[in-house]
Amino acid sequence: MAQDTRPMDTRPHDTGTLTARRLKWHAQDEAIILMRTDCPVCRSEGLTSRTRVLVSCGDKQVVASLHQTEDDWLSLSEAGLSEAAWTRLGAEPGAALEVTHAPTLPSLSDVRRRMTGKRLSRDAFDRIISDIAEGSYSDVHLAAFVSACSTLKLDIDEMTSLTGAMVKVGEQLAWDQEMIVDKHCVGGLPGNRTTPIVVAILSSLGLTIPKTSSRAITSPAGTADTMETLTRVDLSLADIRRVVAAEGGCLAWGGAVQLSPADDILIRIERALDIDAEGQLIASVLSKKIAAGATHVVLDLPVGPTAKLRGTPEARALAQHMTIVAGGFGVKTKCVFSDGLQPVGRGIGPALEAWDVLRVLQGSKSAPPDLRQRAISLAGTALELAGHAKNDTGVAIAQEALASGSAWAKFQAICAAQGGLREPPRAAQTAPLTATHSGKVKIIDNRKLSRLAKLAGAPERPAAGLTLHKRLGDEVASGEPLVTIHAEAAGEIAYAMDYATANSDIFTIEA
Amino acid sequence: MAQDTRPMDTRPHDTGTLTARRLKWHAQDEAIILMRTDCPVCRSEGLTSRTRVLVSCGDKQVVASLHQTEDDWLSLSEAGLSEAAWTRLGAEPGAALEVTHAPTLPSLSDVRRRMTGKRLSRDAFDRIISDIAEGSYSDVHLAAFVSACSTLKLDIDEMTSLTGAMVKVGEQLAWDQEMIVDKHCVGGLPGNRTTPIVVAILSSLGLTIPKTSSRAITSPAGTADTMETLTRVDLSLADIRRVVAAEGGCLAWGGAVQLSPADDILIRIERALDIDAEGQLIASVLSKKIAAGATHVVLDLPVGPTAKLRGTPEARALAQHMTIVAGGFGVKTKCVFSDGLQPVGRGIGPALEAWDVLRVLQGSKSAPPDLRQRAISLAGTALELAGHAKNDTGVAIAQEALASGSAWAKFQAICAAQGGLREPPRAAQTAPLTATHSGKVKIIDNRKLSRLAKLAGAPERPAAGLTLHKRLGDEVASGEPLVTIHAEAAGEIAYAMDYATANSDIFTIEA
Repeated sequence: MAQDTRPMDTRPHDTGTLTARRLKWHAQDEAIILMRTDCPVCRSEGLTSRTRVLVSCGDKQVVASLHQTEDDWLSLSEAGLSEAAWTRLGAEPGAALEVTHAPTLPSLSDVRRRMTGKRLSRDAFDRIISDIAEGSYSDVHLAAFVSACSTLKLDIDEMTSLTGAMVKVGEQLAWDQEMIVDKHCVGGLPGNRTTPIVVAILSSLGLTIPKTSSRAITSPAGTADTMETLTRVDLSLADIRRVVAAEGGCLAWGGAVQLSPADDILIRIERALDIDAEGQLIASVLSKKIAAGATHVVLDLPVGPTAKLRGTPEARALAQHMTIVAGGFGVKTKCVFSDGLQPVGRGIGPALEAWDVLRVLQGSKSAPPDLRQRAISLAGTALELAGHAKNDTGVAIAQEALASGSAWAKFQAICAAQGGLREPPRAAQTAPLTATHSGKVKIIDNRKLSRLAKLAGAPERPAAGLTLHKRLGDEVASGEPLVTIHAEAAGEIAYAMDYATANSDIFTIEA
Repeated sequence: MAQDTRPMDTRPHDTGTLTARRLKWHAQDEAIILMRTDCPVCRSEGLTSRTRVLVSCGDKQVVASLHQTEDDWLSLSEAGLSEAAWTRLGAEPGAALEVTHAPTLPSLSDVRRRMTGKRLSRDAFDRIISDIAEGSYSDVHLAAFVSACSTLKLDIDEMTSLTGAMVKVGEQLAWDQEMIVDKHCVGGLPGNRTTPIVVAILSSLGLTIPKTSSRAITSPAGTADTMETLTRVDLSLADIRRVVAAEGGCLAWGGAVQLSPADDILIRIERALDIDAEGQLIASVLSKKIAAGATHVVLDLPVGPTAKLRGTPEARALAQHMTIVAGGFGVKTKCVFSDGLQPVGRGIGPALEAWDVLRVLQGSKSAPPDLRQRAISLAGTALELAGHAKNDTGVAIAQEALASGSAWAKFQAICAAQGGLREPPRAAQTAPLTATHSGKVKIIDNRKLSRLAKLAGAPERPAAGLTLHKRLGDEVASGEPLVTIHAEAAGEIAYAMDYATANSDIFTIEA
């Protein structure tokens, strides 16, 4: 036999430290550390690419995914950090980092257990969500958990456990008032921007509604995106308290408050998978409402073939489960099923929806009647749920608050308290999308219309989006504009136009 | 209202190209592209971090995950590539890259469908596996698919569809011989290195057994790792044909042949999740056997509380499902249930197992009897399954091939044909792990013993691992060695020792 002539490794065991290098490396909220394959730490610890490692910097620690390089652009004594890792470690350039194998996460056994089709206990959800909130799960772990909770639907006990676990790991708001109202829309309908109007109406009538909203997940605008074109929304907890103490309501971005940090992490994965399973949806919505201290919650459930809820049975089941789980936390809910066949209002996109909201609040003749009506209906339901109106009188009271201008005055006061009301931006470029033939509008594909608005730049570019000129049942002549595309660059108009050309069924027009 | 004073973006639409930069960036097989957040392409395409993008280089394309940086270490006109992306694009430094939004993958709808608890058709599996083999799935997509196929177990039809889909996307071997024998062990038992012996016996008796093996996934050694300490294993398809034509058998690494490239990708995710669901296990094993042209397959299923198969019912179900699915592809299988209570042989780790194999083949008095007996039993079963021995005569024939030295001669001939037989390396450092008290060995924890061998450096460092001195039922005195730890650096000995100290139940010794 030939002798094996490969050299043997006789380097001493050296745990050494590395110096932190900020690569300004954006990989969403995933903590990643980049090290030289041949650095002393990788060699002595036996670390290979994609190992989960524990990175320590002073008294802070983060579990990160290890990437490696063999190239000199990173030195042997450096470790590059993704922004998520950099921020969580509170690192400074050149700070000393220690890197070791990450400890085993016992909660992954719980995830594996559910991946064999078994149901999980409250303790198991607590363990999992706590590790997720700490940032200790890799994308692979997160996706496996999300998928396991979707493939075998969460039952009511599990939904309750997941909701409670999410609340525990976040900030919680406590209020002096006994009754705290909230509202939420189970998305999927472009332009359905009722929240600012509902908050203005309810707080003008003396209810307390400390509203926190998300930015868009898969849609062209979230309420936080729209409100940001009108005022400041990244309020601290102290800001929220101050605005609500003064005005009874606020319209803040929830992400700055960390009401449900685990949910914020899971949402990124759900977005990548483009799924929103019932149990996770319920836990996501309710964890934020409970953490915000809500006692009475009105839920808007738009139902339609191209809305998130495609059919009534699905919507009724969601409403029933939402009500039971909320009840377990002492929260009263009322679900309002609404028409999800077509967009609401005229604008789709942050600023364009803000203009619609302003028109409704100002009582303008050009205000979209459907947006106005939906907001009134939700506000009326909230008034009745909260006992501020007798049954069947809520709508009239809400209507009066709008008609009298008191809701508009309240809205201005809230925006002033948040940092000042400003005018939403207008896009540099517009172009009409016209009908290719005459007839009546039979179907509008909400999903494709949303995609069109996003291709025009929404929500990243606040002024971008669409103005809708035709609604279901409207007569349209060949060559007449169906929507106006708003964008900040000609290229984005072109993208949107290309998509519209390739998708002739955004509007179905029949003779 | 105050005017919004934020500057508007009026840059022209510019799809421009970027120049490729090799960062020698290892992120396992994930294709990643790193671009400046403020580069013209990200701006004009509206690309944000973690967007799935289509990268084109000449006539090659790859779907990659976008990471971004704002720092000058990457220039505005450069795009850094991970090694997986670099290799698949066949890029050269400075090559022109075009980057656009990745097209939607229709197969993700199939994944989402299974994530709602629905079963998938053969076409759906074909679509999914084809996209996975192309490298178009992100880790999030892969993990969601793996989890969805585990949480709701695959049924027989789905296992068959998944197996068939995996075969279609890989290389397939065709042979002139009508009968091609193969063997496979459903892992989990350290030191169970029967394959080299079985291949030597069967090919010495005139059977054709073109064996391809994997490297270790979660164990201290795979057959390919062990064989690599004895000869060359990264054989091309042509090499395999040549060796098998000459000797009737080979012992090659399967990874170089791409028999089931989709499975290789999924295994990385399963390893990160530390799961191995039945349906995926069956598809993984059978896809490689079918692609290798096997007609008769013997399966070794070790059963024991710390083996992969923990109980007999689980093992019987696996055997039954494996047989049915294999039958659907015209492959005859025979499952052998073996004792999975303790390791096999004395060595654990690539080279240490190679020494055991050599001793058995050479008929050495110090050959581990259990390894010898298991190899003979599997070879005998294969002889009977293939009709080369009448029932209950296979074992005697196999035994004779070993005793006569013809199996050893054949093994040397195979290694010579693969590139020459060499002596396995020996570790630089050894240290005994001793018993803390006297008594009889009652239980050996296979999983923890494997972990110990891995902490000592196996399989990355071929000479690292363990030598086992005591087996179940053996008497042991306090201070007597239970195992010897072999490592290439003192630090690794220390790691293993630390683990052994913290885990006193690797061996359970009772009076």
